[in-house]
Amino acid sequence: MSILSGIIPPVLTPFHADGSLDLESLDTLVEHLVSGGVHGLFVLGSSGQVAYLTDEERDTVVQRVIAKADDRVPVVVGTADLTARRILAHARRAQAQGAAAIVVTAPLYALNNAAEIADHFRIIAAGVDIPLIAYDVPVRGPAKLGRDMLVQLGREGVIAGVKDSSGDDVAFRRLVDANRAAGSPLSISTGHEVMCDGMLLVGAEGCVPGLANVDPAGYVRLHDAAQRGDWEAARDEQDRINRLFEIAFVPQGRSGDAGGIGAFKAACAALGVIASGTMPAPIEALSGEEVAGVEAIVREVGLL
Amino acid sequence: MSILSGIIPPVLTPFHADGSLDLESLDTLVEHLVSGGVHGLFVLGSSGQVAYLTDEERDTVVQRVIAKADDRVPVVVGTADLTARRILAHARRAQAQGAAAIVVTAPLYALNNAAEIADHFRIIAAGVDIPLIAYDVPVRGPAKLGRDMLVQLGREGVIAGVKDSSGDDVAFRRLVDANRAAGSPLSISTGHEVMCDGMLLVGAEGCVPGLANVDPAGYVRLHDAAQRGDWEAARDEQDRINRLFEIAFVPQGRSGDAGGIGAFKAACAALGVIASGTMPAPIEALSGEEVAGVEAIVREVGLL
Amino acid sequence: MSILSGIIPPVLTPFHADGSLDLESLDTLVEHLVSGGVHGLFVLGSSGQVAYLTDEERDTVVQRVIAKADDRVPVVVGTADLTARRILAHARRAQAQGAAAIVVTAPLYALNNAAEIADHFRIIAAGVDIPLIAYDVPVRGPAKLGRDMLVQLGREGVIAGVKDSSGDDVAFRRLVDANRAAGSPLSISTGHEVMCDGMLLVGAEGCVPGLANVDPAGYVRLHDAAQRGDWEAARDEQDRINRLFEIAFVPQGRSGDAGGIGAFKAACAALGVIASGTMPAPIEALSGEEVAGVEAIVREVGLL
Amino acid sequence: MSILSGIIPPVLTPFHADGSLDLESLDTLVEHLVSGGVHGLFVLGSSGQVAYLTDEERDTVVQRVIAKADDRVPVVVGTADLTARRILAHARRAQAQGAAAIVVTAPLYALNNAAEIADHFRIIAAGVDIPLIAYDVPVRGPAKLGRDMLVQLGREGVIAGVKDSSGDDVAFRRLVDANRAAGSPLSISTGHEVMCDGMLLVGAEGCVPGLANVDPAGYVRLHDAAQRGDWEAARDEQDRINRLFEIAFVPQGRSGDAGGIGAFKAACAALGVIASGTMPAPIEALSGEEVAGVEAIVREVGLL
Repeated sequence: MSILSGIIPPVLTPFHADGSLDLESLDTLVEHLVSGGVHGLFVLGSSGQVAYLTDEERDTVVQRVIAKADDRVPVVVGTADLTARRILAHARRAQAQGAAAIVVTAPLYALNNAAEIADHFRIIAAGVDIPLIAYDVPVRGPAKLGRDMLVQLGREGVIAGVKDSSGDDVAFRRLVDANRAAGSPLSISTGHEVMCDGMLLVGAEGCVPGLANVDPAGYVRLHDAAQRGDWEAARDEQDRINRLFEIAFVPQGRSGDAGGIGAFKAACAALGVIASGTMPAPIEALSGEEVAGVEAIVREVGLL
Repeated sequence: MSILSGIIPPVLTPFHADGSLDLESLDTLVEHLVSGGVHGLFVLGSSGQVAYLTDEERDTVVQRVIAKADDRVPVVVGTADLTARRILAHARRAQAQGAAAIVVTAPLYALNNAAEIADHFRIIAAGVDIPLIAYDVPVRGPAKLGRDMLVQLGREGVIAGVKDSSGDDVAFRRLVDANRAAGSPLSISTGHEVMCDGMLLVGAEGCVPGLANVDPAGYVRLHDAAQRGDWEAARDEQDRINRLFEIAFVPQGRSGDAGGIGAFKAACAALGVIASGTMPAPIEALSGEEVAGVEAIVREVGLL
Repeated sequence: MSILSGIIPPVLTPFHADGSLDLESLDTLVEHLVSGGVHGLFVLGSSGQVAYLTDEERDTVVQRVIAKADDRVPVVVGTADLTARRILAHARRAQAQGAAAIVVTAPLYALNNAAEIADHFRIIAAGVDIPLIAYDVPVRGPAKLGRDMLVQLGREGVIAGVKDSSGDDVAFRRLVDANRAAGSPLSISTGHEVMCDGMLLVGAEGCVPGLANVDPAGYVRLHDAAQRGDWEAARDEQDRINRLFEIAFVPQGRSGDAGGIGAFKAACAALGVIASGTMPAPIEALSGEEVAGVEAIVREVGLL
Repeated sequence: MSILSGIIPPVLTPFHADGSLDLESLDTLVEHLVSGGVHGLFVLGSSGQVAYLTDEERDTVVQRVIAKADDRVPVVVGTADLTARRILAHARRAQAQGAAAIVVTAPLYALNNAAEIADHFRIIAAGVDIPLIAYDVPVRGPAKLGRDMLVQLGREGVIAGVKDSSGDDVAFRRLVDANRAAGSPLSISTGHEVMCDGMLLVGAEGCVPGLANVDPAGYVRLHDAAQRGDWEAARDEQDRINRLFEIAFVPQGRSGDAGGIGAFKAACAALGVIASGTMPAPIEALSGEEVAGVEAIVREVGLL
């Protein structure tokens, strides 16, 4: 089975009220996910609020999740930083801790073209011994990763997969098609919560939905239905999940890093999976009214 | 059956070498589409190069297509212009000619907010007696149409459907979900060529793919498979169609209005459906080399 | 003196409460501007809400303004439409009515590349006998006009000037420099209200500020200071004008077409220059509170 | 004199062919700048290719430049990283090394709103004892810094200045005006090479042009002319400098980080100020043909 097959939640990072990591909550969250049947864990992603963590905190999170996962599922690790040599330092620490793969974005702050971005991935791949997954998340950086570049890097063995959070379904489908035509060197997953059914139908091997922190079992059922070719059951499960996803729209007028992740944390807290919905400074946790709105939806779909 | 159900190609507008409309080719194209089994025709869309036509030419195209369709399928008509009162003039002429519905975008050149855009649609709907379909095509104008506004306009009876060419699959799915929750006042179709299978699975009623000018029967087979719940057959047909869609990427370094539409025209010309791939000034038709590249793909997928 | 020299206000279009043109107010506005010393008038621009007018209304506005201007200043006319042949129809009507020049944007709705956009201007220029001014307003259309294309079109005699509302000062300066190196075929003006001093210093020949509807004499004083090389006097006048420009930010949460133009109209109404601040549907006029805020600033800077 | 007064070049970072820092060239570059009369030095900016440096290399550069500057001019230090606590670590190291101020962007990769971004700056300011300069460079990150937020942070003493590389002249002028109205808590500089004359006229206190690495004395003459109110001399000097700036457009089809900085390095190498135009991986240095094009312009304007 390839590295991005199945449901691989981007694990939330819980915090104490004083801003320190809440590692006990991280343990219970990991247990919730693994016992929910997920196929892997992705730590230090956008949903894991990697941008707000120091290097020491990153290492602590990786170590804790790998220990708790205890070889039951693979753990892939995000490495967000500005450019290749800086990312490589994170990648090597992740490898040393037992990461199954690393997840790497295009350069940040830097303004590179396609050839330079391809070399960026090559530099990093040459410096580690674990698979590299390209993370296409243009909303957070200057560059959409091109289809031909990704397939070429797959052919070269530089990258083993693509986590697509580009929100561009035409590009996604064309990537799936080109990858197949090239002999499928890449494992392709979608990062969007609400279209896993459609994307699995058309060729995604896996999904990396932040909402799976709240309802891992639902996503696993969706994936199982897709695996057995029961696409209407997959769609019905997705439709149910999408009603739950409305929690992400309860917070209004919030930043991109505050609303959705804040709602996922609030829902996990309501379910007792983590202790609180605390957010890292300068982001504020949801208000009491927002939390109540989130809980109402969680209850409405039957999770609470 | 609702207004956007099934396969509704955006009909290409053929030209003679001197820039005048090639109405004989328009006739053969319409016959090709109707005999291919399509469920409706959309004239004066982006693929129909509406922006390049004078009002007189628009009227000629509508009249000719409606005459040729001869009540076998409904004909919906685009109305591209800057603002409501200008669009209304086009809409009334289309209605008088027998259009089954009109297709309307957000204002162009104008810079309006959501409330103003909603009123824009209300003004137009109040002035005609045929259904109005909102056309969400942010790449050509300043505004993405909001989900809540669209559903609200559906509830009010202002719009009967949405043609989504936004390329935003998350927004598409959320629109489908919200429409269903509201009692399905809207008929929703996708304007993208390569994801009809996935979008039909998740709730689209129809597809408006420019590529259906080339292969209407293929899209109809895809739609039939979806109708009978055979999603894997739908996907396989889509995969085949997607190999054909590579014609749109043969022209390199062309403008958004030159490459894809130029390739669709070149392919139709290769199939004998229209007389030539002539484009309206200032756009140049594909080069001989590009045409050869298009034809090679058309042949490769077995259409030629 | 070249076509864009000096202060050339984009003339507001006043409306009656029933949505019809208020031509008496248009007369008093034109008189206010000409007696304020402006060097030309630009009708049917963005500030003139051209997008919201029918062709008949456009013609009425042009005719009225040209009659009222009565050869005291030249009148240049906007031609907003989708593509070249449609624009040409407007341009010919404007020429027939006595326009001194026409103002033309890149194609709208269409997706053209630089070569096609250059041909777009060539097609229009070939069809009229009055000068053509290119209008660079990327916020309203898909394309920023490239420096080299503009200078090339100037060299060819296709365009006589550029009205720059791109908000890109680096591109503006580089255009000024390249135009001078080419022998200054183009007359270049800035469309921004707040930087006329700086832009005149660096090589603009004129300014087309919407705010000059409110305070034409202030802009003329600024221009006169610049003409005599008293840049600090120009800057002080600009600083005073910029305090007045804060009226554009009194309306909050409004659309791009509602706030600034709404404030200019409210200020003109407060000064008795036009009868009311009525806006064309679907835009609402400013609220009473907003009008009061506008008037307070107009009073504060001593115009009222 | 405030922290951003005058000409403050963003110092290039020279490399050896093996990718290591070329500190001897850094010394000669600093000497070239200080002896050219500049008023300060900005290290670890975008032109200094900060994104491509490890933390150790950053420290080495800061130490070397501060040592070489030897209190003749203040040295301000960039701190590019993802979020506040990560930036603070860089800021503290810079302070310990003798930085006169730190330069801080909005968060990267993170998706924050205005309130969160303001708190981002507050967190960093609270952790250091040297002034903080906000760096507005939206092309490299998700956020344009708002005028009201900047002035408010100035009033609070959180930030001492703004380096504006937004390319938005209207926003720049409105910031200058609002800052003056607030009692001028901020020192405001422009980061653009080609409009220093205009921006000094309208209220900038300084300029941070990458091109000043090549011609520091030219920018100092421009600044001196502006200081004595000779705006036409300032403009003429700027016009001359702008002919030199054409070196940035010699490389065609390069990335944003390759063309301009590559040309600045090639020009400095041609002048003997640094040993070579080497770029950090994955960026390639200019080709021989491009270098020749750069040198031709440097010669044409009389620097060589």
